[in-house]
Amino acid sequence: MSGKNKQYKLAARPVGTPKDSDWEFTSSDIPTAGDGEVVVKVHYVSLDPAMRGWMNDAKSYIPPVGLGEVMRAGTVGEVIESNNPAFSVGDCVTGYHGVQQYGKSDGKDLVKVDPNLAPLQSYIGGLGMPGLTAYFGLTDVGAVKEGDTVLVSGAAGAVGSMVGQIAKIKGARAVGLAGGADKCKYVVEELGFDACIDYKSPNFLSDLKEPLKSGVDVYFDNVGGDILDIALARLNRHARVVICGAISQYNNTTPVQGPVNYLNLLVQHARMEGFVVFDYVKQYGEGSMQLGKWYSEGKLKLKEHIDEGIENFPSTFLKLFTGENFGKLVLKVSED
Amino acid sequence: MSGKNKQYKLAARPVGTPKDSDWEFTSSDIPTAGDGEVVVKVHYVSLDPAMRGWMNDAKSYIPPVGLGEVMRAGTVGEVIESNNPAFSVGDCVTGYHGVQQYGKSDGKDLVKVDPNLAPLQSYIGGLGMPGLTAYFGLTDVGAVKEGDTVLVSGAAGAVGSMVGQIAKIKGARAVGLAGGADKCKYVVEELGFDACIDYKSPNFLSDLKEPLKSGVDVYFDNVGGDILDIALARLNRHARVVICGAISQYNNTTPVQGPVNYLNLLVQHARMEGFVVFDYVKQYGEGSMQLGKWYSEGKLKLKEHIDEGIENFPSTFLKLFTGENFGKLVLKVSED
Repeated sequence: MSGKNKQYKLAARPVGTPKDSDWEFTSSDIPTAGDGEVVVKVHYVSLDPAMRGWMNDAKSYIPPVGLGEVMRAGTVGEVIESNNPAFSVGDCVTGYHGVQQYGKSDGKDLVKVDPNLAPLQSYIGGLGMPGLTAYFGLTDVGAVKEGDTVLVSGAAGAVGSMVGQIAKIKGARAVGLAGGADKCKYVVEELGFDACIDYKSPNFLSDLKEPLKSGVDVYFDNVGGDILDIALARLNRHARVVICGAISQYNNTTPVQGPVNYLNLLVQHARMEGFVVFDYVKQYGEGSMQLGKWYSEGKLKLKEHIDEGIENFPSTFLKLFTGENFGKLVLKVSED
Repeated sequence: MSGKNKQYKLAARPVGTPKDSDWEFTSSDIPTAGDGEVVVKVHYVSLDPAMRGWMNDAKSYIPPVGLGEVMRAGTVGEVIESNNPAFSVGDCVTGYHGVQQYGKSDGKDLVKVDPNLAPLQSYIGGLGMPGLTAYFGLTDVGAVKEGDTVLVSGAAGAVGSMVGQIAKIKGARAVGLAGGADKCKYVVEELGFDACIDYKSPNFLSDLKEPLKSGVDVYFDNVGGDILDIALARLNRHARVVICGAISQYNNTTPVQGPVNYLNLLVQHARMEGFVVFDYVKQYGEGSMQLGKWYSEGKLKLKEHIDEGIENFPSTFLKLFTGENFGKLVLKVSED
């Protein structure tokens, strides 16, 4: 085993949008397995909005990434060395190896996956954390029920695309918000949402009227900002607003934009509730089984946006914030 | 029955803080009872923050007061004429007769009350809507439980004073926020809260530390604005934020201040839920009985701030927004 392990480390805490100088691109020796350990060759790195939060030195649901540490990220790859009886060379596993080509683990955070059932990258996408986020967020926090109108922002994204599809499976109407006509077309024609509205269109507000004429029972928010306010203004009685993220706000250098229309919660006796998928760690098994079943029955379509080359990490990561990605954003970092 | 019925009507929709010219002070003949009707001599008019919302021409949980109509308000008074077999002359009743000295009703909105059990004005205060608002907001929306830390703004006010007392009855810690040392002293020494912090003090934020060192499980918000953000920043896991009102925002001519710290709902898997007491109309009986029982057992103290003279309505109403009132604000409008 020769060669090097290319890595992106956090060099500085970004102010606003991350810049190239916030990263250090280095290489180290490929790790070797100690007692009970396994070495994983990473094929795909998951790029997710939550990573932006992990770069800030702020108290949150998970400690920040330290300066000089490999950037934290979900990964999927292949075991290439194992001193752990639970794993064999050749096993495919998901884990949190971060933005690098090889990772080492005691195995506790690794989950074996089957590349014959779904493409490897799906296990860090629709069948992984984003899928579980959509599943628990919509069914538990959002308490979706038959006949509800579910509105979801980032509808062409990793989480949003799953939210709408699960809403449909549950007998609800699914209305998406996405940026651009191509994404909206995909969301309706491929994913089967009832409607999808282009928030970049000059007619955005009037375009919302028809699909939301019966109001919003569940709003699943991935973006925050003005769109959260637009949704709050359209809530039905006893509506549920699921706060999953606020990507429009993550690179702000000014304070977060608070939802001006929050008093509509009072008028409609509605609730707004936040969560992170880690809250459901004890139920991951149940969620994964359900998602896998729906996938095998052809009820879930997964779309990935795959960029290649670990050296492209900084620019690929920024696509999350510009909306350039179309589907779950992953970076292929293996080189053969 | 001679004399006149003095009334305040809504003359113009206020921009910001209501001005004298937004009201028309008139008098009409004292009404007489038609078939099935009763005439009530109003003793006390309830002055509540929600009334400011009813003055705006906006879709809400209740239609706005029309221009030229008597201003809507809760009232308590005495039946002086009855063509309705359910009511006799001399009965004391609560109702919604508005800001006037005499009202007429078909009886459907009237509730008989007993002036021997509690002072008449308590039935539009701690034992009326404000008490029911506190009761359902804290027990149902806030799902208070033993050992919780309950933080409530407007702690010396009609609703807030009841929230803290009910929290104590339920085995929770009660921490109040109020404006001024006198109110804070009253809230702790008379009402039995565990602590009360003066939000007008220059040391407000540091004064919060000790009473909230174990965080906030339920925040009952009557004020909105900066104080809502301060509470959101201190939530515990699975905390509940009860949106009951936002008096700091009601006279704004600029947009409402949205809660910048709402993303802490995500970090703490917390929820923010709004309500109005009318949502619980079917459970008023249960709530009133419980409040009456606690009152008769000496577990609830009620404090009213009584101004006199219907002609003082415009200036007395404004005390709600300046915080000049100390206790539930009522206006005595009967003249003998």
